[in-house]
Amino acid sequence: MKALEQAILAKGKVLSEDVLKVDSFLNHQIDPALMQAMGQEFADLYKDAGITRILTLEASGIAPAVMAGLVLGVPVVFGRKRKSVTLQDNLYTADVYSFTKKVTNTISVSKDFLDKEDTLLIIDDFLANGEAAKGLLDVANQAGAKVAGIGIVIEKGFQPGGKALREQGYRVDSLAIVSSLENGTVTFA
Amino acid sequence: MKALEQAILAKGKVLSEDVLKVDSFLNHQIDPALMQAMGQEFADLYKDAGITRILTLEASGIAPAVMAGLVLGVPVVFGRKRKSVTLQDNLYTADVYSFTKKVTNTISVSKDFLDKEDTLLIIDDFLANGEAAKGLLDVANQAGAKVAGIGIVIEKGFQPGGKALREQGYRVDSLAIVSSLENGTVTFA
Repeated sequence: MKALEQAILAKGKVLSEDVLKVDSFLNHQIDPALMQAMGQEFADLYKDAGITRILTLEASGIAPAVMAGLVLGVPVVFGRKRKSVTLQDNLYTADVYSFTKKVTNTISVSKDFLDKEDTLLIIDDFLANGEAAKGLLDVANQAGAKVAGIGIVIEKGFQPGGKALREQGYRVDSLAIVSSLENGTVTFA
Repeated sequence: MKALEQAILAKGKVLSEDVLKVDSFLNHQIDPALMQAMGQEFADLYKDAGITRILTLEASGIAPAVMAGLVLGVPVVFGRKRKSVTLQDNLYTADVYSFTKKVTNTISVSKDFLDKEDTLLIIDDFLANGEAAKGLLDVANQAGAKVAGIGIVIEKGFQPGGKALREQGYRVDSLAIVSSLENGTVTFA
């Protein structure tokens, strides 16, 4: 997606050969117009897939997921990384290891908002090793829901997550695929 | 706001005289069309206020804030409740006590995305004791930014946060004000 690639080139910061910081428009400050364009793109890709619900993960998945949900006319559920007082039981849970943060989070989704009648579009901000996507798929499988596909904002194509998910037969649509961050430069696939 | 009050009556759950659960359209599952209507309402209220940026808090503030930002044509920054590897220093921080979760979170906002030239609209999902709003105001004050107002989705009018903020001279606009949750019933102001 051209507008996203342009934003990455103009505003992304390459912190190492593994880490691309996009805090100025996606992960901390959010560009609403770009989110809307991304949501439209996800919705166009999945408009005939019979999506009933979008599943994402707090916090950075929420903006693109809600924009996609608005166009598709479906609700969005976000997996929580911590339990709240009002969300204690009746949960699907899965462990997600974050290579960036070096911690394992237990993500949780209420059983009230996912079930076997659902056809899901999973949306997340980054796909690198695929840990977050695996956790969300685990939750979807526990619910018995069908997964139509996985929509990713930025896939790091040089890390193994995307390849592994596609080999398992999942449809993965990434709006930008970064093939390398070598020499401080972003190269797209 | 009528559509929001209707959603609260139809889908909210009164867990106690203090706790209203709106996990089915705001805090866990999100209704994108309702978020858009709320964003439009916030934008209408602040269209002449010279807003340059919206400041909110992860996770539940993000959806209404991004929808408001889309209409106002301004970026949204969300305060983080945990530090990330790519967000370690160069931060404004403030302590926020959550009566619901019974923990103090240090929220943080990068200095890159707030400054003294900003006129802010602060948006959050709930206003009860006002702790989150106070934390966001603290961050705004550290940046030297002007605060045009505080936009709240649901204010619990029987708790002291809203009154205290208005007495301090802040403009507070709540899309729904709940005056009581007694007897398991939601009453609006």
